[in-house]
Amino acid sequence: MTTHKSITANEGDFVLLVDPRNKEHIFQLNTAGIFQTNHGTIKHADLIGNAWGSFVKTHLGKEFMMVEPSISDLIVSIKRTTTIMYPKDIGYILLKMNIGEGVNVVEAGSGSGALTSAFCWAVGSSGHVYSYEIRHDSQNLARKNINKLGYIDRVTFKEKDVSFGFDEENVDALFLDVPNPEDYLVQVRETLRPGGFFGNLVPTMNQVSSLLESLIAHGFALIDVCEIMLRFYKPVPSRLRPEDRMTAHTGFLTFARPLS
Amino acid sequence: MTTHKSITANEGDFVLLVDPRNKEHIFQLNTAGIFQTNHGTIKHADLIGNAWGSFVKTHLGKEFMMVEPSISDLIVSIKRTTTIMYPKDIGYILLKMNIGEGVNVVEAGSGSGALTSAFCWAVGSSGHVYSYEIRHDSQNLARKNINKLGYIDRVTFKEKDVSFGFDEENVDALFLDVPNPEDYLVQVRETLRPGGFFGNLVPTMNQVSSLLESLIAHGFALIDVCEIMLRFYKPVPSRLRPEDRMTAHTGFLTFARPLS
Amino acid sequence: MTTHKSITANEGDFVLLVDPRNKEHIFQLNTAGIFQTNHGTIKHADLIGNAWGSFVKTHLGKEFMMVEPSISDLIVSIKRTTTIMYPKDIGYILLKMNIGEGVNVVEAGSGSGALTSAFCWAVGSSGHVYSYEIRHDSQNLARKNINKLGYIDRVTFKEKDVSFGFDEENVDALFLDVPNPEDYLVQVRETLRPGGFFGNLVPTMNQVSSLLESLIAHGFALIDVCEIMLRFYKPVPSRLRPEDRMTAHTGFLTFARPLS
Amino acid sequence: MTTHKSITANEGDFVLLVDPRNKEHIFQLNTAGIFQTNHGTIKHADLIGNAWGSFVKTHLGKEFMMVEPSISDLIVSIKRTTTIMYPKDIGYILLKMNIGEGVNVVEAGSGSGALTSAFCWAVGSSGHVYSYEIRHDSQNLARKNINKLGYIDRVTFKEKDVSFGFDEENVDALFLDVPNPEDYLVQVRETLRPGGFFGNLVPTMNQVSSLLESLIAHGFALIDVCEIMLRFYKPVPSRLRPEDRMTAHTGFLTFARPLS
Repeated sequence: MTTHKSITANEGDFVLLVDPRNKEHIFQLNTAGIFQTNHGTIKHADLIGNAWGSFVKTHLGKEFMMVEPSISDLIVSIKRTTTIMYPKDIGYILLKMNIGEGVNVVEAGSGSGALTSAFCWAVGSSGHVYSYEIRHDSQNLARKNINKLGYIDRVTFKEKDVSFGFDEENVDALFLDVPNPEDYLVQVRETLRPGGFFGNLVPTMNQVSSLLESLIAHGFALIDVCEIMLRFYKPVPSRLRPEDRMTAHTGFLTFARPLS
Repeated sequence: MTTHKSITANEGDFVLLVDPRNKEHIFQLNTAGIFQTNHGTIKHADLIGNAWGSFVKTHLGKEFMMVEPSISDLIVSIKRTTTIMYPKDIGYILLKMNIGEGVNVVEAGSGSGALTSAFCWAVGSSGHVYSYEIRHDSQNLARKNINKLGYIDRVTFKEKDVSFGFDEENVDALFLDVPNPEDYLVQVRETLRPGGFFGNLVPTMNQVSSLLESLIAHGFALIDVCEIMLRFYKPVPSRLRPEDRMTAHTGFLTFARPLS
Repeated sequence: MTTHKSITANEGDFVLLVDPRNKEHIFQLNTAGIFQTNHGTIKHADLIGNAWGSFVKTHLGKEFMMVEPSISDLIVSIKRTTTIMYPKDIGYILLKMNIGEGVNVVEAGSGSGALTSAFCWAVGSSGHVYSYEIRHDSQNLARKNINKLGYIDRVTFKEKDVSFGFDEENVDALFLDVPNPEDYLVQVRETLRPGGFFGNLVPTMNQVSSLLESLIAHGFALIDVCEIMLRFYKPVPSRLRPEDRMTAHTGFLTFARPLS
Repeated sequence: MTTHKSITANEGDFVLLVDPRNKEHIFQLNTAGIFQTNHGTIKHADLIGNAWGSFVKTHLGKEFMMVEPSISDLIVSIKRTTTIMYPKDIGYILLKMNIGEGVNVVEAGSGSGALTSAFCWAVGSSGHVYSYEIRHDSQNLARKNINKLGYIDRVTFKEKDVSFGFDEENVDALFLDVPNPEDYLVQVRETLRPGGFFGNLVPTMNQVSSLLESLIAHGFALIDVCEIMLRFYKPVPSRLRPEDRMTAHTGFLTFARPLS
């Protein structure tokens, strides 16, 4: 996925269609494709060449709005067989771990590829992502998802058990998205350059406790543990109020830096 | 600031020093510099060439830890005369507004340059930031801050009143960091490409209400209003608990897309 | 409802039954009654005389646990045709408005009687609640709910429009549970004793704004606005973590005191 | 403290004075007393007989506002040598544990008497509180605080180690405010009537984990773990927004019921 300078939707672009009931649909344009909903069908060919931000009608006359999806939209719409990481957490991870243009980052595991997608997007064409996963099916799905997004050249997938170590050296940043991060800190230290950025997300407090013990034992410093709560509001100007329900928890984030 | 592939600190690098009381100090290395604290002094020359993640001593023998600051550390340490945007909000903004490699983004106003720094970092060497500000002193400070970070080539500062419009056309993303965003939506539409990414942060609910009214009146869609709460934990494995106090509020985020 | 000193369930008591799937059922015991679920039936007669905290079986042999419900359980299980107030908010209201033994409190409107129930419980046998409601059906439901709880002697229901004023004078506390509280502050001042406790809950920020303006204009002081967030955890010792979802919002609470 | 039906402040009453900078001062009226601030002094005798909600002036002419404090105000102003429980948590505890008129409740430890005060207030003149504490100084302070509030007849203080058991039987509710609640569940079961209300507040997740293990092992059911976040807003109608900072954490609440 390259930045859209074009003001029209082109073959291969991802599009976000909003239906008359405000439901969002994300898919990739291909000349022969047909988008089907219970509001009727739209031929991809009828979308290609249309201006972003314009309206299109189904064969039943129902009006859809077409915009370009953001990386945030793409992440949450990814096909998954695992719990994925969410934009509220990913955005903060990128800034805290300095994952920007040209960075080399290692992650384990690949999961469904949501975080991998964000890392590929953030490191740009001059950075690289090394993504480890022990489950064959998960990594296949992650690869498929990354390929669809056009990022396949930015990532090296490795179907390996990280308890045997990572292949890379002196990487800038390493994210452990595994249930037992405390078991891999020797391996992390061998791969992450001194002072580099370590990150983790786990759902339970017990896991955080175990990780903290291990981080201290393995000479990590600048340890931060936090959680991010995202609350949406009903966007009605005369009746502004939070939504009734929200996600109460995705996970606890831990950041640390290995000392030399 | 370029990505540090080097494992040692070099002239011109920003360093983060952690003192014996866990207080953090961020500054830029220059051969003749001297870092002064009430724990004693350290010559920059004694830091240059040292490995990231290593320890250094002041002339009084007090030990400091030296690591590379992340963009998150740099943002919160910026010199300021205004309220700045914080990483918890910025990270989410980048993903929601698709501000990555190669993107052209407009912001108003420059403020102290915290958000400007993050945008420069995110768009990389192939993107560009156009930063409007009506107050001469604010923009000077922002320029100085951006210059120190090495991003001056990535941003065009304009000391202009945006009520007369922006100079750019078909930009990918536009962020209004002003107290009365509702007054500039005509100007936003002329600059932002159809379907582009609009964002805003304001501290009060009354401002959100006014902005929402105006967004609806000016044909914006996909409107999201949210707030992000960040809660830190004391990183003690056997006594894991949230910190006693937290930031309760920075601002409400609003995102929207102009329709064509 | 009187305090249960008895260690067994008696005719007229409310019981809370927990089914094999942890679903809770609350009802009132009467000798002829039969409790029906898709796990089978239980005769009330078989519960009467049983110890609190014991197990009972349905005619299909499924085991249910029987405990006494708390006032919190009773409030959330109340029959309703309106949004009700929740224990997280009510508990704080009682302490902030000093609604305890012997207090005279006025509320408008009655709604479904959830807050009324809590007030009756809190003021005890020596206090009294005056509950105004303009909608006939609502007040009927509230009366029915209060009657079932055994509190009917503690409350005087009035089917009246409070814009014509309240009948009481020098009351200790007054709670406005109406959408436009700002319209009734003259009436509030005539009823609430100087320095007494005023409270309100409304869902939107716009309503809070209007109320604040009116409170200031009508000489109220010590104004507090707040919201209470309640987050539950999965009670699993080895995997302690917040629930996935939570109630994000019930309403904003406002408290104030009229000056003389 | 009895409910104030009087519209004037009397000898022995607690008063809440708000100074010109909105700082609150709480004290008890006695004819000979003098209230001293850096805004000047006020003789208690000049307050006695004054209407609640009225203004008084210091000898320097500075105006103070006088209102009756709520139980919430009194709790947070209590003299303390320990961390105290706060109204946001206490209010919810009262409703969840059914602590109302006529209830017999046991607590350990007494701490500084904040929760004890709230329990005395809630159970009214017909209920009773049994408060255990092993530290002599803490219990003395709690007794002094309760005595000042006029509740000394409602509580029996016991300077005892609860590991040797509680003296009471078949109590309605028992609250353990100790750092190792998991160690006393045998004792709790001997005192709390079957199906009665058990409660606890501890600050760390590790403590919650240990308590949960023990609750399950000792046959408790209907286990709830939660936390309550209270966020205040700046009460400015045209600039409504949350306060900048808030209390991020007081403790995790656990509730459970012993089965027979």
